[in-house]
Amino acid sequence: MQHTISVLMNNRFGVLSRVSGLFSSRGFNIESLNVAESSDPTVSRMTIVTRGDTAKIEQVTKQLNKLVDVIKVVDLTEESFVDRELLLIKMNAEARVREEILRIVDLFRAKVVDVSPSTYTIEITGDEGKLTGFLDMLSPLGIQEIVRSGRIAISRGNKSIN
Amino acid sequence: MQHTISVLMNNRFGVLSRVSGLFSSRGFNIESLNVAESSDPTVSRMTIVTRGDTAKIEQVTKQLNKLVDVIKVVDLTEESFVDRELLLIKMNAEARVREEILRIVDLFRAKVVDVSPSTYTIEITGDEGKLTGFLDMLSPLGIQEIVRSGRIAISRGNKSIN
Repeated sequence: MQHTISVLMNNRFGVLSRVSGLFSSRGFNIESLNVAESSDPTVSRMTIVTRGDTAKIEQVTKQLNKLVDVIKVVDLTEESFVDRELLLIKMNAEARVREEILRIVDLFRAKVVDVSPSTYTIEITGDEGKLTGFLDMLSPLGIQEIVRSGRIAISRGNKSIN
Repeated sequence: MQHTISVLMNNRFGVLSRVSGLFSSRGFNIESLNVAESSDPTVSRMTIVTRGDTAKIEQVTKQLNKLVDVIKVVDLTEESFVDRELLLIKMNAEARVREEILRIVDLFRAKVVDVSPSTYTIEITGDEGKLTGFLDMLSPLGIQEIVRSGRIAISRGNKSIN
């Protein structure tokens, strides 16, 4: 089962490497991970997406909680949350496919953010379903490069992990 | 100086922890980092934002290139690139500030993605300047929680790092 885990930690050298090392040493592959400043600049917030059975994930989150500089670990999968991911996609935009690319961009409310004589670079945000649908439509037209932010997630309603 | 570095690497246990460990052991603080699948599911793509003088960063990228499972390292700062970041922001939305929040959301082309009786959760995408401006406007109104994806970046034009 897929798990989406949020980690608050002190913004110090080496914490990131210790947190990701804990997952890999226990045989969990990380599907995506991102980390950046939270609302407090001395605290970083990480979102990890991984796959594994709930009992084993619970063991890892307990161990994470024991690491120096880790402030809080929440497995969002246990509650209701909003998740989004950001993608930049560079398309081969030969004359014969340009119109079709722009049609798809429009339908998915994506945006062309850079253009060259032979490429379009597209920005899109969405949940997993929308992004998979978008990539499925674009694939046959010639994707040259993709950069994904990995999922970020936040609890629904007025709950907060701070 | 701020550097934006892209790393292509085999999607294997432990690579992420070795790459981030290399930065921290050399005293570089990572401002943001994200990693997810690239267009090839066996290859992950990472974007790292860090600060340091160019000669020292060059040493680190050379060392990264020597790591097993690292396929390619590019310091995008040396060329022209497009960068974007995604944020989810939970606002305290008491009656007296709701209209002002929605006005700012509208001006910045952001989007409300979840609502509760006391909170609005907002999604926004942009470059550093836009996001700083947005947060500066929202701060006095009561931010409860922020999740940032960290920057993702792609070369301008038809160049590709694949």
